[in-house]
Amino acid sequence: MKIELAKSYGFCYGVKRAINIAEKHPNSVTFGPLIHNKDEIERLEKKHQVGLVETLEEAKKYDTVIIRTHGITKERLKRLKSEGKKIINATCPYVTTPQQIVEKMSKEGYTIVIFGDKQHPEIQGVASYSVLPEKTFTILSEDEIIGLPLGPKVALVAQTTRKPEAYQRIAAKLVARVQELRVFNTICNATFENQAATEELARKSDIMIIVGGKNSSNTKQLFYICQNYLDSCYHIENSNEIKAAWFDGKERCGVTAGASTPDWIIEDVIAKIKELTKES
Amino acid sequence: MKIELAKSYGFCYGVKRAINIAEKHPNSVTFGPLIHNKDEIERLEKKHQVGLVETLEEAKKYDTVIIRTHGITKERLKRLKSEGKKIINATCPYVTTPQQIVEKMSKEGYTIVIFGDKQHPEIQGVASYSVLPEKTFTILSEDEIIGLPLGPKVALVAQTTRKPEAYQRIAAKLVARVQELRVFNTICNATFENQAATEELARKSDIMIIVGGKNSSNTKQLFYICQNYLDSCYHIENSNEIKAAWFDGKERCGVTAGASTPDWIIEDVIAKIKELTKES
Repeated sequence: MKIELAKSYGFCYGVKRAINIAEKHPNSVTFGPLIHNKDEIERLEKKHQVGLVETLEEAKKYDTVIIRTHGITKERLKRLKSEGKKIINATCPYVTTPQQIVEKMSKEGYTIVIFGDKQHPEIQGVASYSVLPEKTFTILSEDEIIGLPLGPKVALVAQTTRKPEAYQRIAAKLVARVQELRVFNTICNATFENQAATEELARKSDIMIIVGGKNSSNTKQLFYICQNYLDSCYHIENSNEIKAAWFDGKERCGVTAGASTPDWIIEDVIAKIKELTKES
Repeated sequence: MKIELAKSYGFCYGVKRAINIAEKHPNSVTFGPLIHNKDEIERLEKKHQVGLVETLEEAKKYDTVIIRTHGITKERLKRLKSEGKKIINATCPYVTTPQQIVEKMSKEGYTIVIFGDKQHPEIQGVASYSVLPEKTFTILSEDEIIGLPLGPKVALVAQTTRKPEAYQRIAAKLVARVQELRVFNTICNATFENQAATEELARKSDIMIIVGGKNSSNTKQLFYICQNYLDSCYHIENSNEIKAAWFDGKERCGVTAGASTPDWIIEDVIAKIKELTKES
């Protein structure tokens, strides 16, 4: 079995930065998972005593609260501050940017359109910075633009992990609907690079293993890209999920990983593939 | 022969307004043709003593100078004013808007991209309002974006008579190239309406007559739209150009006209078609 890693994969700048910050603050908690990777979160807890809370109620018990890479809502941040917590902000700077844009543009009276997943913490955080909640819309496809009460001036931002082509389509659709459209390119470069490298690798592989949290948006994007090129694509969180049968009759295995997947998990996955496909 | 007029055609708001202004100022000249229609310009000269000059040198001889619907460059306007001329500004308000946007955005440091024809007076006028001429680019297709030294912030405007779909494609292409794109929808509604009505009529006609100045950008657009649906499309300036042979074997003739075509020319065209196709 020929195993090849994508030219660009795994941890992005924001994730590396957040882990670095967390490792320097033992005996703290992160509010929501720091990154979308359970194994790495377990490692932080065991090795660096960085816990995890999911509610404001739980957070009350701790002095130091780390804000996750995806950011949190403006209201929650305010609440944590008002309760006298020491706040360590590990929000990725690429996420802080759309938060600031949404705040500024809504203050200037622009209708806000966010291209992203309403359920994703990043987007809930970004949307919360709008001072015009009734004029703030989160959409996942250009079809959802139809019927939105947009007004003459619209500002558009994207979830950092979205595909540029889909963002371009949404921008194009909005152009025809408004007098002025301000499009902010908030898609992260690391996402571009991981996506391009994954596409390149998928083209020449007959099986693709995509490593990353099942709730990681950018990992899911990598999986969808692979599906365009081959049937044998597997989105796994760690090496335990790998099955030997996947590799029957395959010759070229590509491996890629989402931005929240640590190197130690990827190394473990490659070792497991080698072991399972070793000729006896 | 069944002759049908497009549901929307001919004179737009800006052209009607300009002719109105010109008719109220006898013994003046327009600097460049007021609208792109030779016959109407002749009528204004004969009936209302509104002449035509093409250069600043010629303009010197007159006290009152009317600015054409397409506008003129900022420098020429300044020059006319400095020579003490009485300026009557008949620039279409829909053209004044992109002039003002280009001035404001370039002052704020945005690179300016204009979707339009470099040779067209409207675009020469609009581009002249940029305070950053080295950062102002006029393009006619999305392919021309490749290699442009754009910088991080771009403002995009369109010639009033461009097709919205092409503008959307250009906006989409630019989104991927810059940090912030401000798209101003400067395409005129009248253009939309005339184009949509022409398309509807072309679908059900077997010959289309498109009436308007040969150098009229919006009339040419109507002609191109018709070409998508049928081979027998004729762009004429007036009834003299019509040939009987065009109508051989045809049953349904559609007639449309550009925004600078006066009703009296359209009526004349229809009368001529009727005459030529009258069954003997």
